[in-house]
Amino acid sequence: MDPYLRLAGDPVLAAALATADAAGHAVRGMTSPNPPVGAVILDAGGEIVGTGGTSPVGGPHAEVNALAEAGERAAGGTAVVTLEPCNHTGRTGPCAVALLEAGIARVVYAFADPGEVEGGGAEFLRAHGVEVTGPLVGPGTDLSGVPQFSVEPWLAARRLGRPHVTLKYAGTMDGFAAATDGTSQWITGEQARARVHLDRSRRDAIIVGTGTVLADDPRLTARRPDGGLYDHQPLRVVVGETPVPEDAAVFPALRYAGGTLAEVLADLGERGIVDVLVEGGPHLAAAFIAAGVVDEVDAYTAPALLGAGIPVISPAADAGTTMTGIRRFTLRSVEVLGGDVLTMATLGHG
Amino acid sequence: MDPYLRLAGDPVLAAALATADAAGHAVRGMTSPNPPVGAVILDAGGEIVGTGGTSPVGGPHAEVNALAEAGERAAGGTAVVTLEPCNHTGRTGPCAVALLEAGIARVVYAFADPGEVEGGGAEFLRAHGVEVTGPLVGPGTDLSGVPQFSVEPWLAARRLGRPHVTLKYAGTMDGFAAATDGTSQWITGEQARARVHLDRSRRDAIIVGTGTVLADDPRLTARRPDGGLYDHQPLRVVVGETPVPEDAAVFPALRYAGGTLAEVLADLGERGIVDVLVEGGPHLAAAFIAAGVVDEVDAYTAPALLGAGIPVISPAADAGTTMTGIRRFTLRSVEVLGGDVLTMATLGHG
Repeated sequence: MDPYLRLAGDPVLAAALATADAAGHAVRGMTSPNPPVGAVILDAGGEIVGTGGTSPVGGPHAEVNALAEAGERAAGGTAVVTLEPCNHTGRTGPCAVALLEAGIARVVYAFADPGEVEGGGAEFLRAHGVEVTGPLVGPGTDLSGVPQFSVEPWLAARRLGRPHVTLKYAGTMDGFAAATDGTSQWITGEQARARVHLDRSRRDAIIVGTGTVLADDPRLTARRPDGGLYDHQPLRVVVGETPVPEDAAVFPALRYAGGTLAEVLADLGERGIVDVLVEGGPHLAAAFIAAGVVDEVDAYTAPALLGAGIPVISPAADAGTTMTGIRRFTLRSVEVLGGDVLTMATLGHG
Repeated sequence: MDPYLRLAGDPVLAAALATADAAGHAVRGMTSPNPPVGAVILDAGGEIVGTGGTSPVGGPHAEVNALAEAGERAAGGTAVVTLEPCNHTGRTGPCAVALLEAGIARVVYAFADPGEVEGGGAEFLRAHGVEVTGPLVGPGTDLSGVPQFSVEPWLAARRLGRPHVTLKYAGTMDGFAAATDGTSQWITGEQARARVHLDRSRRDAIIVGTGTVLADDPRLTARRPDGGLYDHQPLRVVVGETPVPEDAAVFPALRYAGGTLAEVLADLGERGIVDVLVEGGPHLAAAFIAAGVVDEVDAYTAPALLGAGIPVISPAADAGTTMTGIRRFTLRSVEVLGGDVLTMATLGHG
């Protein structure tokens, strides 16, 4: 069954929800500290007449952008939003009021707004005679097989009080990120690598360890397939005590040469970072897992065998584990990218 | 696009091909040294009127079983077979003749029969006025995304002159088959484990190393979800120099305490074994990869992290690799099994 249909219970709303979330993903990385919300306006006949994502800070929210596109066709229509419309006058007016003024008859939303200040939009709309359906997703919702919503990292960061952490790695089916001699270009194919760059363009920050800087000297920029840079470039962060050359390609980058990962994340959070991508290497990845601060795993796997090499995760020699300590995730999506596989799993309900 | 449609070029034939292959898979493990072929008979109107798989040695081939079910409705119809019909009178009469006598007007087949004796069925049928389409799959065919045909291991074994080898392992997303203390029950869930048992019931033999016998003392039987045994039980094989207890649960089993893996496979081949499943452990898996005798990989992955543990593949300490030595496979299928992922990849075109 279509995962959006399972949540929305209606094919028209399901399609609108999927479109709204796509609009949210399209603005990811450019909205922090605001959430990358997506919204769709259906006219009274159920046709999509407006789509919008959150503008950069200070700009209109998703609902307002979608309403602007819909114009007068919004009257009597339905708004489908990935996050509960805000009820708060901050840099922009409350979305709940905008929806009401546009004559929207029904609002459907995926996640509740957890904010004490921003929340309450649903209640306000109901009190003013708008039919409100939501949240479609709550703590008890089974999200297995439901692609990650663009607002989930923001919601998780809010709940956790630190940036949301995605651990990304690429390797062979037998679990190696590189051969024993360190060579790794290219294990995965063009489509997978293009996806990594697109994903970078949607994050607030990328973290790598000093080992990766020394071994690969990566730029860690988010580049389009034609080599050009995406408009949004994430903050680059290098973590680890080992010195790295000042002329490494990753610079300018934020440099943490000491402190725990929790302290690094706390500092990033204070800088307004909501959504970080940990790109390795294997030792840093293991450290994030051991610290219990991995909220999402994006595993790129090539249908290939190396037989031996540098594992995708290289734990400290004294690391000890037992099965009761296994951390279970929810499988959200499996995508085939040009013969490679991208498996994405998340903790909790976002 | 539906992978069978891509091969067959016609929706009716594509559906028949998928059904025929399913019939072939249903008899896997019970036909060696004959190939587990599947066949479907369409009547003149394109309706499926007969389905069959190869019977155990001495019994009818797939085409004859399908024809028997179709009866008189076969006249003027189409036979869709996963392997070129045989043209050889062995223990049973040639299938090509049976198809002709049943009045089949058209034969479509997926793979050519490589046998000098058995082959030539297509030529015989054409010479007798039957329209023949095939092979649909040849050395140049792109099989990425096409689920493995049941006859492929048999064809590969024939080409390679040794049994076809499938490497199977189960682990976490971060590549661990067990925690550092050796605990591993259960990394994958019930559906994945049930699939492993079904898969065992379709193999000629299962190979494990002495380490697995000593660590887990597995029975290596093929059990149904209710605990009962499948009708077909694969030959159990234990490889390795380390002594194992005579009362280990795996016995009776074939025991190789010396010799190279190539020698083990050659001996199994002489015993009529066509299709073997290597179930580990990590050291034996690495040895098969290093020996270059892995033809298929079935990777079961749980959306979970251990952070440290026993890797799914544990190469010898002195193993050295470089990227130019990577062995590329073709991704055939990705299945979600109760929240776990089964990724299957094969070498070559079968």
